Amino acid sequence: MKYEFLYEAIKEAKLAKAEGEVPVGAVIVKDGKIIASAHNLKEKLKKTSAHAEILAIELAAKNLSNWRLNGCEMYVTLEPCPMCAACICQSRLSKIYIGTFDPVSGACGSVINLMQNEYLKYHTDVEWLYSDECSNILKDFFKIRRV
Amino acid sequence: MKYEFLYEAIKEAKLAKAEGEVPVGAVIVKDGKIIASAHNLKEKLKKTSAHAEILAIELAAKNLSNWRLNGCEMYVTLEPCPMCAACICQSRLSKIYIGTFDPVSGACGSVINLMQNEYLKYHTDVEWLYSDECSNILKDFFKIRRV
Repeated sequence: MKYEFLYEAIKEAKLAKAEGEVPVGAVIVKDGKIIASAHNLKEKLKKTSAHAEILAIELAAKNLSNWRLNGCEMYVTLEPCPMCAACICQSRLSKIYIGTFDPVSGACGSVINLMQNEYLKYHTDVEWLYSDECSNILKDFFKIRRV
Repeated sequence: MKYEFLYEAIKEAKLAKAEGEVPVGAVIVKDGKIIASAHNLKEKLKKTSAHAEILAIELAAKNLSNWRLNGCEMYVTLEPCPMCAACICQSRLSKIYIGTFDPVSGACGSVINLMQNEYLKYHTDVEWLYSDECSNILKDFFKIRRV
């Protein structure tokens, strides 16, 4: 099921791309079912916090009527930035599955590690899915933007 | 003017307290004027991201029609958590003034430092205002909750 859920996150990333946003998508799963899907809308919403992960967390919390997302797992196409990584831990998400790493801003080990930080109170498990498709969506997007 | 702006943030923290929320308030100032004020509404809105700082950032961005808050400064009663500290830097806020430190979750030096982190791309200057009132609001709140 892992790659099926990741594929749903990739579909969200493609929606972001179609809207001219940096293509990142995320879904949140509870008891084997997707309870929230979102993609990056930072430029459209003019909101720093409108990353795919935070929008998905907000939607999941709304659907569960609870900001505590214990027992929920996130699938995200790109390694979360520091803001999103901290929000994921503080939301009590149990685990995140990451499609590809972000060498510039990744906060799950690539640049810093906020998911398993010994000084912080809340931790979330991480599993890397090493998806070429997740990596290529981003490479293609930035290649086109640089032309 | 510093303490006048901090006082406005304290007024916001008191509004949070009146609503049963952890009492934290924030204001954002541009060109000597407050352009956004907010207080913590995490429980009421059932949103992990509804901290005073992020709500103030969202409001300032809305008022400026731009998520980039270069040239803006934030006054906040409590040292931001990792999520908010990262959002502050990623929003390009120039400087934050902090009322008191948070020894449990503070991400501006108390527990970790995301404001001036050599590995991260965006930095925001920090000035500590060491306000007894900011410290006491929180102490009183948690004292009452523990009774």
